Amino acid sequence: MKEQQALGARLASIEGHVKAIRRMIDEGTYCIDVLKQTYAVDRALKRFESELLRGHLETCVPQAFREGRKDEVLKELGDVLELARR
Amino acid sequence: MKEQQALGARLASIEGHVKAIRRMIDEGTYCIDVLKQTYAVDRALKRFESELLRGHLETCVPQAFREGRKDEVLKELGDVLELARR
Amino acid sequence: MKEQQALGARLASIEGHVKAIRRMIDEGTYCIDVLKQTYAVDRALKRFESELLRGHLETCVPQAFREGRKDEVLKELGDVLELARR
Amino acid sequence: MKEQQALGARLASIEGHVKAIRRMIDEGTYCIDVLKQTYAVDRALKRFESELLRGHLETCVPQAFREGRKDEVLKELGDVLELARR
Repeated sequence: MKEQQALGARLASIEGHVKAIRRMIDEGTYCIDVLKQTYAVDRALKRFESELLRGHLETCVPQAFREGRKDEVLKELGDVLELARR
Repeated sequence: MKEQQALGARLASIEGHVKAIRRMIDEGTYCIDVLKQTYAVDRALKRFESELLRGHLETCVPQAFREGRKDEVLKELGDVLELARR
Repeated sequence: MKEQQALGARLASIEGHVKAIRRMIDEGTYCIDVLKQTYAVDRALKRFESELLRGHLETCVPQAFREGRKDEVLKELGDVLELARR
Repeated sequence: MKEQQALGARLASIEGHVKAIRRMIDEGTYCIDVLKQTYAVDRALKRFESELLRGHLETCVPQAFREGRKDEVLKELGDVLELARR
């Protein structure tokens, strides 16, 4: 629950950052300065994904093993990790 | 000008996507389904950055060469590309 | 065992590719042509890593759960995935 | 010329690293330990690419502008950067 709030707060901050970049575009900010901000958003998104994945490994995966859904949860994890590297 | 609008529209769509993911978190959506959406945002951001960079190469870089700011613009480009790969 | 051979064969091919790029550098090949080859090596390495990770999820992870080393194997996986995104 | 030697040396080191990973696979090394090494190779390749690109921006690009091949060299750069992000 507490973790859910922390994840939500991270996303709210990313959303605000994207909104600020949109304003930069509207005001004709120099491309290079815009790019530096979008790279910062990339990194913030990756940190969000890392945390989400870590939470998944700590809670959903062990639970799935206990409930006999081992194959399913591992297949899913393999698929999502392949997607992540693209 | 037209390109600026297209870039702004792309960002507005990314912003809406992030907002939708925030709602998914609030509603306790399964992590794997959230992750797939954040990966889609990653890809949309990369497309935005590619377009921005291509515009920079087509307009700002040639202009800087004409105005004798060659070293500056290339140094800047080198720095930003190093940042991009992180 | 068969999978080990397949992984070894992939790596041998990557090694040959890197050797070929080294020759390109020695012969003063145009940078852009060299870059395209190194990007191909990047992609081949990622495919290798995906396969390795999938094998890990299919064999080592379930075995670790059976042997009561659940926390250890999931902590390890979390760490390695964080490393992967850098 | 000196830079060419430095680039060649970097590649030779990457090649040696890949060979060492191949030996790890042959010896049945634990997947996670193999993965950590391939991630190190990823990072070394990226550093090599950054240096190559920086050299390209410092020498080939200004030369192309001087020789009136501006459009060509910038188009090429845009294409290669799009490739890089995949």
